Amino acid sequence: MLGRVRTAVAQLVGGLGPAARPQLRGTPLAPPRPQPAFLQLTSEELQLADDHAGRAVQSPRESRRRLPWSTGYAEVINAGKSQHNEDQACCEVVVVDRRCSPRFTEQPQGRKDLCFHYWGLFDGHAGSGAAVMASKLLHLHICDQLRDLVDILQDSSPPPLCLPGIARELPAEQNRAPLAQADAELPSDALPRFHLEKAVSHESLVIGAIENAFKRMDEQIERERMTRLVAGGCCALAVVYLLGKVYVANAGDSRAIIIRNGEIIPMSREFTPETERQRLQFLGFLRPELLGNEFTHLEFPRRIQHKELGKKMLYRDQNMNGWAYKRIEEDDLKFPLIYGEGKKARVMATIGVTRGLGDHDLKVYNSNIHIKPFLSCVPEVRVYDLTQYEHCPDDVLVLGTDGLWDVTNDREVADVVKEVLMDYEPNDPCRYTVAAYELVVRSRGVLKERGWRLPNDKLGSGDDISVFVIPLGGPGNYT
Amino acid sequence: MLGRVRTAVAQLVGGLGPAARPQLRGTPLAPPRPQPAFLQLTSEELQLADDHAGRAVQSPRESRRRLPWSTGYAEVINAGKSQHNEDQACCEVVVVDRRCSPRFTEQPQGRKDLCFHYWGLFDGHAGSGAAVMASKLLHLHICDQLRDLVDILQDSSPPPLCLPGIARELPAEQNRAPLAQADAELPSDALPRFHLEKAVSHESLVIGAIENAFKRMDEQIERERMTRLVAGGCCALAVVYLLGKVYVANAGDSRAIIIRNGEIIPMSREFTPETERQRLQFLGFLRPELLGNEFTHLEFPRRIQHKELGKKMLYRDQNMNGWAYKRIEEDDLKFPLIYGEGKKARVMATIGVTRGLGDHDLKVYNSNIHIKPFLSCVPEVRVYDLTQYEHCPDDVLVLGTDGLWDVTNDREVADVVKEVLMDYEPNDPCRYTVAAYELVVRSRGVLKERGWRLPNDKLGSGDDISVFVIPLGGPGNYT
Repeated sequence: MLGRVRTAVAQLVGGLGPAARPQLRGTPLAPPRPQPAFLQLTSEELQLADDHAGRAVQSPRESRRRLPWSTGYAEVINAGKSQHNEDQACCEVVVVDRRCSPRFTEQPQGRKDLCFHYWGLFDGHAGSGAAVMASKLLHLHICDQLRDLVDILQDSSPPPLCLPGIARELPAEQNRAPLAQADAELPSDALPRFHLEKAVSHESLVIGAIENAFKRMDEQIERERMTRLVAGGCCALAVVYLLGKVYVANAGDSRAIIIRNGEIIPMSREFTPETERQRLQFLGFLRPELLGNEFTHLEFPRRIQHKELGKKMLYRDQNMNGWAYKRIEEDDLKFPLIYGEGKKARVMATIGVTRGLGDHDLKVYNSNIHIKPFLSCVPEVRVYDLTQYEHCPDDVLVLGTDGLWDVTNDREVADVVKEVLMDYEPNDPCRYTVAAYELVVRSRGVLKERGWRLPNDKLGSGDDISVFVIPLGGPGNYT
Repeated sequence: MLGRVRTAVAQLVGGLGPAARPQLRGTPLAPPRPQPAFLQLTSEELQLADDHAGRAVQSPRESRRRLPWSTGYAEVINAGKSQHNEDQACCEVVVVDRRCSPRFTEQPQGRKDLCFHYWGLFDGHAGSGAAVMASKLLHLHICDQLRDLVDILQDSSPPPLCLPGIARELPAEQNRAPLAQADAELPSDALPRFHLEKAVSHESLVIGAIENAFKRMDEQIERERMTRLVAGGCCALAVVYLLGKVYVANAGDSRAIIIRNGEIIPMSREFTPETERQRLQFLGFLRPELLGNEFTHLEFPRRIQHKELGKKMLYRDQNMNGWAYKRIEEDDLKFPLIYGEGKKARVMATIGVTRGLGDHDLKVYNSNIHIKPFLSCVPEVRVYDLTQYEHCPDDVLVLGTDGLWDVTNDREVADVVKEVLMDYEPNDPCRYTVAAYELVVRSRGVLKERGWRLPNDKLGSGDDISVFVIPLGGPGNYT
């Protein structure tokens, strides 16, 4: 199944067939292009895409190369809040080489190569640098993390708890033993074991690989941010399709939903100062030095005035979900670590998302207080087993940056998708692109005298908007 | 509605009518009785209840005082793992006095007294001391936390964010102003406010009060554990019915479910080393000194042998849900902070629950490493609005210690309850006691040659078992 897919899509996706396997290290990066390579925009088109006044929606042209699975994509630039579109996207098919096999050309008996499909959305802030870098490299980090697992994941027996772990230390010629042989040689397998052993699933190895790939990506941004001039940070939403399962990894406030037979299945949750309040307060409580004597880890429903000292104010501590009154003390006059509600909630009055990549230099305005310790680069990974359900061509996975979801809710997105798909034959591959296009147009709105407006006259999204519509049982079917 | 309930049940429940309002401070505690007072056991019955060989199930006798709402209750001692039954229970109706009104006899205009119904289950470990103490005092701490809120909760306007906070500082005669007047005098209300204000619901004030009551209870156990000879700790599951809503607060591995029209609604989750792994690992990661150089915050699927140094082993870090391989280093040979699976999972190889009251002296065996910093006394509080649904007499809230749930799952519990209730008239108040009795008998099993056995010959629960069956729309109806 996978072999067929790879061969098929390798002809569609630029230069990433079996002959051009990706390598994370030693590959010089092309200079950052402002928009996803798969859009193949000409320089005139690029200029148009960057026009804040017109806000032309960009989609892959019909005449050009089609995305894997006939994935639909569309994007539009913001209404002027930043010079460039700070959203970035990536869509690739990636072949995973075994860790120890650069010089090992034969396949171990019966073991196949591993390949995964990948979609990524990156919503940058304070510059597009981190988003551009992550859009070009995160899938390679995932690939790198999967290298140890190529044979393990294709073996139906439970993953070995312990591996020889010699791959990086021995010279290459001693390093050729495929896993099957290496396993047999493992002395610990023959020894009496401690009684207790936890079973670990194949699925949880993929989750661990994706989690660690995000960490490595973040470390690389930290290391290379000076030389690559990477400013700011980005939310990251990545989807990996591997061996029949869809892994949705989210770090930030983008969102993924599956629409199946009209039903909405949430595939992510947003990480914001409100949803991560307790984790952040717990850290501030345990490491008060990170608060720089300017912030309190307690939450209050509003700022406290000095003259209110001695009164009782509602508060929430790190281990509380409810509110209670406390007598106001001097320390409570500091600014709350988490403050504000909804889209206006901020960590240390600065940032409105609590997970993502980058932001290594982010400080509280006019201070030396670092915010990065409170941010996490680790995604939450949700798994959807594609083989457990017979999908029809109208079943899709929708990925969108917050520009989409701020003005269009899950139900409305599902309705727009349904409406568009109904207008096209089930086997028309362009229907998913039209759906993505329509989602972006309807969230952006139309320019009127008083700004970008939706049909109901509410404000459209002034943010960058990027949307993938991925068919789960359509014409580009993976099976 | 509440007034009627209070008057009605005051005649049923021992000495806790409006004339005998509970006071937390200054009330000498009766010497701990091994079993709940409401069982009213004679000394012969007490002896029988303590017999590990017979394991007679105890329930309130029909001839004696009935519990509020005709609540059903039953318990049985363990099969010999500890001398006494370490489970404790409490069922009360509590009247809440305003904080500032001990000398204030008139009601503020139109404001009524507040009263709540209360059920508590306490599953002790390493002695019954903490469980006995909590069973006698936790509801008084909840009462104490609600004292500031008597008027606020009965006022339909949103709770004030700030209170004068003078109650404890001014002499009594200046302390009489009811809240309505005090509010009017609040200078901060007349001042320009900071723009941002968070709305806080009445419900979240009750949640906060219950959370803080658990903390105060735990502090009291810490303070008085020497003088009261309180050893060990306990899980605590407490239910508060107040102003139409049921608040279920759980700290430990007891469980509460609502059975409504045959459907099961989980009202709690268990807090164990497995469910709280990431919180505990995060703490161990941030405060490695708490691990005493004996433990590692990393999780491994089995113990590592010294000879495996340099190999690769599966691990999970505090921010991971998946597993990955890491090269084994010297530090990884330490014992994992969280180790084991299911009922055998332990924190620092010692304790199998991660929330509860007490355990202030608990240390790792043969070491000076304290475990209390890893335990939380804060419950998770779930809310169920009784007014949102028309309940029938067969709808119940079931509370049970782990002795019940270890051998009888939610569905089986619902089936037993249904079966018993069908045998009795809907208005027969004893049907809930029979249901509780039957749940305990079926989880304990029958003594055979090879121990206590269930009908399917599996082992019955050898643990203490305690069960409340609380009707939500039965003959003891609260409306």
